[in-house]
Amino acid sequence: MSDTYFSPRGDKAELEEGSGFSPKFDAAGLITVVTTDAETGDILMVAYMNEEALSKTIETGEAWYWSRSRGELWHKGDTSGQIQTVVEMLTDCDQDTLQLKVNVGGDGGCCHVGYRSCFYRRVPLKGAAGKPLALEPTGAEKL
Amino acid sequence: MSDTYFSPRGDKAELEEGSGFSPKFDAAGLITVVTTDAETGDILMVAYMNEEALSKTIETGEAWYWSRSRGELWHKGDTSGQIQTVVEMLTDCDQDTLQLKVNVGGDGGCCHVGYRSCFYRRVPLKGAAGKPLALEPTGAEKL
Repeated sequence: MSDTYFSPRGDKAELEEGSGFSPKFDAAGLITVVTTDAETGDILMVAYMNEEALSKTIETGEAWYWSRSRGELWHKGDTSGQIQTVVEMLTDCDQDTLQLKVNVGGDGGCCHVGYRSCFYRRVPLKGAAGKPLALEPTGAEKL
Repeated sequence: MSDTYFSPRGDKAELEEGSGFSPKFDAAGLITVVTTDAETGDILMVAYMNEEALSKTIETGEAWYWSRSRGELWHKGDTSGQIQTVVEMLTDCDQDTLQLKVNVGGDGGCCHVGYRSCFYRRVPLKGAAGKPLALEPTGAEKL
């Protein structure tokens, strides 16, 4: 059972300084996950897990998510070969966000648009007031 | 006005491959932001911005968030000195998450618990079934 891995959410001190793993799932039953490349540290994607996806990730050492668009459990890489092998999982202070450090299988990509990382465009700072900002490519190339 | 920076959200191709900046704010009016150290690439924190916080970040080049716990606009570092100067801002493919690469002022910390990063504990993988997982310190020290 998935919930056997998790401890009840205690008070602020317990959540922040204790050793109990008490992930906070939001009203939709999801927790935010930032997935980074275990080698480079680059952010690859940000996605969501429900209890089942998190439990499967813990059990298998591969990343499982909840696809909000498809409304289903999602073993990343099942069809693309871009399996994410988890090297390390971290939680943040209040345990409402997780970080997965992964090695990516297949062609090494994570983003369905074709890039290694979903973060392939830059938002310019200090734009002229009254003018919509134009995104800039970071220089990342499609795989 | 904040909304002058943003373009209306177009179709999938426009959002993913176009140059219009069309951040997606959720039902609560917030967008997820992953803040990383511009030098090391480490994830420092994950927080949220509303339209005003995002606009102020664009205009000032310093990170502004929306504090969900306090329900107010939050100029990070205003009281602690831990001002985050934005070196680069990226958006992900569907523009519902932003990455801020920052240099941190003051003592260089980001986490209110006292660490440089909020991600100072590891979640063990492949835990024994039926047993709550015990978080492990990563070795990060308080500032």
